[in-house]
Amino acid sequence: MPDVHIDLGPRSYDIRIGPGLLAQPAVLEAAVPARDVLVVTNATVAPLYLETLQRGLAGKRLGSVILPDGEQFKTLETAARVLDAMVAQRLNRDACAVALGGGVIGDLTGFAAACYQRGIDFVQVPTTLLAQVDSSVGGKTGVNHPGGKNLIGAFHQPRAVIADLATLRTLPPRELRAGLAEVAKYGLLADAEFLDWIEQHAHDLLNLDTDALAQAVRRSCEIKARIVAADEREHDQRALLNLGHTFGHAIENALGYGEWLHGEAVAVGMLLAADLSCRIGWLDRADVERVRALLTRLGLPVAAPPIGVARALDLMAMDKKVLAGRIRLVLLRRLGEAVVSGDYPADALQATLGAHFGGRNA
Amino acid sequence: MPDVHIDLGPRSYDIRIGPGLLAQPAVLEAAVPARDVLVVTNATVAPLYLETLQRGLAGKRLGSVILPDGEQFKTLETAARVLDAMVAQRLNRDACAVALGGGVIGDLTGFAAACYQRGIDFVQVPTTLLAQVDSSVGGKTGVNHPGGKNLIGAFHQPRAVIADLATLRTLPPRELRAGLAEVAKYGLLADAEFLDWIEQHAHDLLNLDTDALAQAVRRSCEIKARIVAADEREHDQRALLNLGHTFGHAIENALGYGEWLHGEAVAVGMLLAADLSCRIGWLDRADVERVRALLTRLGLPVAAPPIGVARALDLMAMDKKVLAGRIRLVLLRRLGEAVVSGDYPADALQATLGAHFGGRNA
Repeated sequence: MPDVHIDLGPRSYDIRIGPGLLAQPAVLEAAVPARDVLVVTNATVAPLYLETLQRGLAGKRLGSVILPDGEQFKTLETAARVLDAMVAQRLNRDACAVALGGGVIGDLTGFAAACYQRGIDFVQVPTTLLAQVDSSVGGKTGVNHPGGKNLIGAFHQPRAVIADLATLRTLPPRELRAGLAEVAKYGLLADAEFLDWIEQHAHDLLNLDTDALAQAVRRSCEIKARIVAADEREHDQRALLNLGHTFGHAIENALGYGEWLHGEAVAVGMLLAADLSCRIGWLDRADVERVRALLTRLGLPVAAPPIGVARALDLMAMDKKVLAGRIRLVLLRRLGEAVVSGDYPADALQATLGAHFGGRNA
Repeated sequence: MPDVHIDLGPRSYDIRIGPGLLAQPAVLEAAVPARDVLVVTNATVAPLYLETLQRGLAGKRLGSVILPDGEQFKTLETAARVLDAMVAQRLNRDACAVALGGGVIGDLTGFAAACYQRGIDFVQVPTTLLAQVDSSVGGKTGVNHPGGKNLIGAFHQPRAVIADLATLRTLPPRELRAGLAEVAKYGLLADAEFLDWIEQHAHDLLNLDTDALAQAVRRSCEIKARIVAADEREHDQRALLNLGHTFGHAIENALGYGEWLHGEAVAVGMLLAADLSCRIGWLDRADVERVRALLTRLGLPVAAPPIGVARALDLMAMDKKVLAGRIRLVLLRRLGEAVVSGDYPADALQATLGAHFGGRNA
């Protein structure tokens, strides 16, 4: 099975991708050499995979903490619970935290590991497609604040990522589709050929074909790895990975975290980014329709909730990609090539927002 | 007035040292070029210096948050209040936090700045001697946990440090003395000549002689700068700065944070480190008495509270300097040269603890 390497000098690490990796103690031992280990997971994932993971880590001093499941628990308070567990287990600086779950568990665990004694190792064991292709890779950790998503966090690279494709068999179909939104994102932002491939293999991916999943996860991670290696701390190029996210965060925030899945919000956000890219002459309308068709084929939403233009703008302005008061957006120069830009006519953005978020409060 | 430069590549910064710096807008503007600024201070310092600082920062979009004063408020909950203020002010990534106060304010503000949007700039304006010579320099930020001091934190270097010696005129004498403990620490761990100088100038320092203070702060920062530049993330050499701290943390933790001042606990801790260094043959008993005499001359405690050997050991084992179960201590090879070592006979440590912490629970 193919591996992906993230090249970040002293913070480099490998991503293992394949079916059944969790049941292979040698894979776990290579990723988690520490003696003291705290596994962080949630109430949904624990009954499915915690015992398998614990068996694979037998011989270590092992603790675990089981958090409630859901984006609404991705808070500083929940991170404090993980920190409490680290203190209670008396973990030292050479200990390791293992995040077993989706993006919320990975972000929370990584942030707690970043803060505990100013930074201990952690390993990502993502059990959702979204986490396997996106959140487990690249070192962004954090929690939400009532004022905005991921406003509190740290850059903290994992020691290793183990993407066990077998865990996707227990994933609710809606979450699988949300993960495919991020897969589509990589094609749209960086690789037209991969975009073609996704269009051709949408059916296989939705049916959990192992070869198709392995290829989708591997190629997604490769693209992310390349971008992260070039710009670890998001000064410029890394912001490309946020295609669809500024619009998407506005949706998630307006509706309350957890109402829409992150990938669903990103799907609609990418459609808005395509729409705006069309209005400024970068894409044809046919390109926008191709994006809409792909998202529809993947079973993803393509209609934004009617939160109103003013509210959308307000929430977008809170997004981290605002520099000196300007909303910088990831737009599509063409399908397969994204750019970060604050250089678009304000009325083009207004038109995109009006067409998708409706006129209420506008 | 002399400056000290901390050489950390892209994270390098300057320390400005002198009387009346806060009243010099040019000094502030050089340190804080950002447009959006949040000043974090406490209820004791705010009436004394907040207005002066605000005047010096006139023209910026300025917010402030005034926290209660005291080590007992150096918690994740208080850091969350600072983060709330950052969100409420809608600070972007190019904003800057300014810590106006002692070590608690500096550590808290630095940690909040490290976490907000995964890291924004912050500037230290230390108003205690302890903060000027120690906590404001070097990028260690964090908060306490009921299970131990500074268990939650981040390495996050300030953008600049402004040590206004005039602020020391309003410092309670007890806190001045606690700060002098850390000054003595630098002499003990790295500079026998500076140790001589401190002995000769103890009276001037206690009487707030500006030239003596400037020399003490400058030399302390120089020593700290050299050590931090060699080992930013405390893998080895930086631990030297913790001379007296593992013993001291045990005292602070046993009595409850805030009962003893940090510098007072470190003073006794240094005496214990000297005592242990003597028991393993590195120091003469006369050296230990010289340490005791200097601390006494500086008005610092030299008697540990009778918390018992077992409790002391337990609390020391929770200290971060434990690697793989061994308590590593900073010991004195001679006066003016410290080393980090876990390689001492257990009964020598027992004897030191027994002689100072008493036999209760032992």
